[in-house]
Amino acid sequence: MNSRRDFLGKITAASIAFPFLKKAASANNPFNEKPSEDRLLRVAIMGLGSYGTRVAEAMQSCTKAKLVGVISGTPSKVKAWQSKYNIPEKNCYNYSNFDEIKNNPDIDAVYVITPNGLHHDEVIRVAKAGKHAISEKPMTVNAQQAQEMIDACKKAGVKLLVGYRMHFEPHTLEIIKMRKAGEFGKVLFFQGLSGFIIGDPTQWRLNKKLSGGGSMMDIGIYSVNGSRYMIGEDPIWVTAQETKNNPVKFKEGIDETIQFQLGFPGGAVASCLSTYSLNYLDRFFLDGTEGFAQMYPSTNYGPIRGQTNKGEIIAPDVTHQTVQMDEMADIILRGKKPEVPVDGEEALKDLKIIDAIYEACRTGKKVKLEL
Amino acid sequence: MNSRRDFLGKITAASIAFPFLKKAASANNPFNEKPSEDRLLRVAIMGLGSYGTRVAEAMQSCTKAKLVGVISGTPSKVKAWQSKYNIPEKNCYNYSNFDEIKNNPDIDAVYVITPNGLHHDEVIRVAKAGKHAISEKPMTVNAQQAQEMIDACKKAGVKLLVGYRMHFEPHTLEIIKMRKAGEFGKVLFFQGLSGFIIGDPTQWRLNKKLSGGGSMMDIGIYSVNGSRYMIGEDPIWVTAQETKNNPVKFKEGIDETIQFQLGFPGGAVASCLSTYSLNYLDRFFLDGTEGFAQMYPSTNYGPIRGQTNKGEIIAPDVTHQTVQMDEMADIILRGKKPEVPVDGEEALKDLKIIDAIYEACRTGKKVKLEL
Repeated sequence: MNSRRDFLGKITAASIAFPFLKKAASANNPFNEKPSEDRLLRVAIMGLGSYGTRVAEAMQSCTKAKLVGVISGTPSKVKAWQSKYNIPEKNCYNYSNFDEIKNNPDIDAVYVITPNGLHHDEVIRVAKAGKHAISEKPMTVNAQQAQEMIDACKKAGVKLLVGYRMHFEPHTLEIIKMRKAGEFGKVLFFQGLSGFIIGDPTQWRLNKKLSGGGSMMDIGIYSVNGSRYMIGEDPIWVTAQETKNNPVKFKEGIDETIQFQLGFPGGAVASCLSTYSLNYLDRFFLDGTEGFAQMYPSTNYGPIRGQTNKGEIIAPDVTHQTVQMDEMADIILRGKKPEVPVDGEEALKDLKIIDAIYEACRTGKKVKLEL
Repeated sequence: MNSRRDFLGKITAASIAFPFLKKAASANNPFNEKPSEDRLLRVAIMGLGSYGTRVAEAMQSCTKAKLVGVISGTPSKVKAWQSKYNIPEKNCYNYSNFDEIKNNPDIDAVYVITPNGLHHDEVIRVAKAGKHAISEKPMTVNAQQAQEMIDACKKAGVKLLVGYRMHFEPHTLEIIKMRKAGEFGKVLFFQGLSGFIIGDPTQWRLNKKLSGGGSMMDIGIYSVNGSRYMIGEDPIWVTAQETKNNPVKFKEGIDETIQFQLGFPGGAVASCLSTYSLNYLDRFFLDGTEGFAQMYPSTNYGPIRGQTNKGEIIAPDVTHQTVQMDEMADIILRGKKPEVPVDGEEALKDLKIIDAIYEACRTGKKVKLEL
């Protein structure tokens, strides 16, 4: 009932937060072939599942990005989204025809929020259609595919970003800032515990072809990625051990529980857990010679909480996906450099580590890394 | 100034807590060759260093055990202790003559609180002198020596206990009780982080001959042992990775930092850290399908603190060494079975695991265990 008032409220808020939006109104001018970058990022979401829905909801509060299109294989979902988000028919696509998006001047970027195993082909199609690609993480299921996606986007002259929402989360950024300022001394240890008890055994996350793996692809990646932004270095070796207690639920190629360890060039080490069989995880701990930081929860949808030896981290609680999409608008349209990268190269590093974790599980050997 | 009042206060408290002590007064009767077991455990401490001093202080509050003798190579320390603890000359020994303790009917047990590398020979000498042996942990520096100590004590008909003070700590016991009652569901993960920044590089703990190893022998053993009492099983495999950033301070054979992982027969895994290069550790985390427990600090001298998904653990704060020595009096004199074992066999298990951790660090391979 309040939608119009909300809408006006948002416009006003946007105008205050982002004064050049007035100018952006002229971006629709058809004579302006190279549109001003002082405007909203116009996004189509591909994949209208639960996370896609969360992103769409969050984008209603964006001041720099706007949901303008959808790509889905389910006409009833498309209809519902059209009506809810006021999406014109011409901005609606399905998986057969979305290459035609190249002829649509009203869409800047496509946010691919489909199962992991589909990202590779879909992102490459988005790139070929000349649109910027945002991929949900994991960007894909292995490093080779990641490289192909990077290459395709480079070739097409479009940007490739990945939904690393924690890279914009204020408590996380505050701890990174403290670490950079030396407040923890020399950082020598990171621990990341990532996991949850997964439900419905028939879901795509437990189907190797769609997921590319098990808990590691879905939730373990938070500890993989977190180890890097918390320590501030890229690892040089990996060891890992897999444990499977339920081979019926977790079939061949779907990891239930993996412990993995990382070594960093500055001498730090990380001990991490990825599991689909325990809750109460989502814990980060960073220890240096002069202090520590801990986060619990550390990567869920929030509110995120952190403490250091100096006390509670005071930072705003934000809707991660709102901030992410606003920041991505600045990155894509205005070349902003985020505090922690969210591009394809960043995702490639994580996938090289995940490849190495799986290799270490298989071989029982330490795997060296060059990222 | 208040020492007499304190003393009387303690006697009264002891009499209430332990009413059969009245009867114990007759234990000094020289005609009673096989003394009643309803009496105080009369202990000599071997090694009057900082931890020996802590134990002696704590024993002043014991109601079932009493410090009655000393073994030391430093005559000035012996004098000071004699005067402070009212120890008769005839109960004072040095490292050359302490075998004569066998002729001393006023000492029941010797608590060996010397560097790790000396425990083996000293405990065997104590056993041969017919006295019960209490060894500080690690009981010795490898499993083979541990077995020899167990055998020697068995042969001599004396008991062999190890200073596992956490096995009597109330918060710890409360969490173990909850785990046994199934309050955490099926326990699948334990994490133990043990370490501190070690100071003086010339101390015995950094001398392989005396310490038998580095952080693992000194502080890592808390996570080794803790994984077993927190999960309630003995591990069946070990993997481990060593990292040495300061080879000048941490010489050959002295481990600075070791990450190790354990697998348990019920499907649980443990991820642990042992280090001499970080503070703010001493953290335990136990996770099951229905709940979790965390402790910080988890093994220091206290107060110990624990939380579960149901809230704060409410348990008394005790002086660990006081409770340990009172409990050991009951174990030695009255055959009490502690909730968590503190005997030589318990220590042997830890040393088999530590042997395996060192082997895994050396070989890079998973080491199977049968405890």
